[in-house]
Amino acid sequence: MFQSLGARAFAVPAPVFLVGSYDRDGRANIMPAAWSGLCASHPPCLAVSLARTRWTHAAIAERHAFTVSIPDRDMAAQADFAGLISGRDEDKFAALGLTPKTAEHVDAPYVAECRAVIELRLLHTLALGSHTQYIGEIMDVKVQSRYLDADGFPDMRRLDPLLYVPLAREYWSVGQIVAKAFSVGRSVDRRAVIGGDGS
Amino acid sequence: MFQSLGARAFAVPAPVFLVGSYDRDGRANIMPAAWSGLCASHPPCLAVSLARTRWTHAAIAERHAFTVSIPDRDMAAQADFAGLISGRDEDKFAALGLTPKTAEHVDAPYVAECRAVIELRLLHTLALGSHTQYIGEIMDVKVQSRYLDADGFPDMRRLDPLLYVPLAREYWSVGQIVAKAFSVGRSVDRRAVIGGDGS
Repeated sequence: MFQSLGARAFAVPAPVFLVGSYDRDGRANIMPAAWSGLCASHPPCLAVSLARTRWTHAAIAERHAFTVSIPDRDMAAQADFAGLISGRDEDKFAALGLTPKTAEHVDAPYVAECRAVIELRLLHTLALGSHTQYIGEIMDVKVQSRYLDADGFPDMRRLDPLLYVPLAREYWSVGQIVAKAFSVGRSVDRRAVIGGDGS
Repeated sequence: MFQSLGARAFAVPAPVFLVGSYDRDGRANIMPAAWSGLCASHPPCLAVSLARTRWTHAAIAERHAFTVSIPDRDMAAQADFAGLISGRDEDKFAALGLTPKTAEHVDAPYVAECRAVIELRLLHTLALGSHTQYIGEIMDVKVQSRYLDADGFPDMRRLDPLLYVPLAREYWSVGQIVAKAFSVGRSVDRRAVIGGDGS
């Protein structure tokens, strides 16, 4: 039986993205953003939504650029820390012992220690109450070579990215491969279903 | 060393959401949408981006409503199937033996067999090249009672939702809890990092 939880910001899985930007003084900053996701293929676009009070919020509005660095399981405490304090007050890269590296295609820094990073040019800005959604065009995806599989694609097991679970407010790891997409669905036998119990 | 993969639609984890809608003739339909994510807290909002050629794309534009049903690991083949054919041609609910149930707050159907569902009222429509981003205000989140934890929150282990991995085109399961958010970051010792190796 379904139980209503009301109008809450909940969906799983949510990602844990470290959004990188330079502030007006050129200081590198990062913050975690779980209200995020891909939103187009051509051009490739990704959206991150940030609370309007965030230091990063102002930085992206000024520089029209940001990065997403994908933290792995061992970076959970660092990612969480980056959400607890503000880049207004403290250099989080220094506090966390992380290295800001300037992106190749956009005016923003990424986390050199992360296994995968994405460079984004701001395309759209949409005010949504508590948050502003920044949609960036993906200018490049970079993955450290040893986290690529034999086909040259990012290997999910080796990337070992974090997930975020709203409401329970937990970080989770990924599990294992379940099936190949655009493939396993072909095994569904319509006739068996339709002819089965007469439903 | 970072290797560039170019301007590709990649980020992990991506969700596997089954987007439910009624078409112009009132027929219930679902399709999987991995280019999706939460995007605001107040009001709670969630975005799904759909290719412009999709039957669901037209349905949401007409009805200004949709649902998101979250499939679990055992529904991978059904979710994948729902992306391989079009609701223009076939009743996917019937073909898959799934039950469309009309949402309580919006004019759209959800999958009664899913463990968690979200009801959404269309707030914004944004054209993004290949895809259109539909932002919905979350009107309600419903979870089957046995998938809630002791605090009344959705239990990630029991929900067992699917993840999608772009480029490799795989479905994955979730793993295990890594840490509590807004908490584990407090354990980071700035001084140890800063004073450590002099970096």
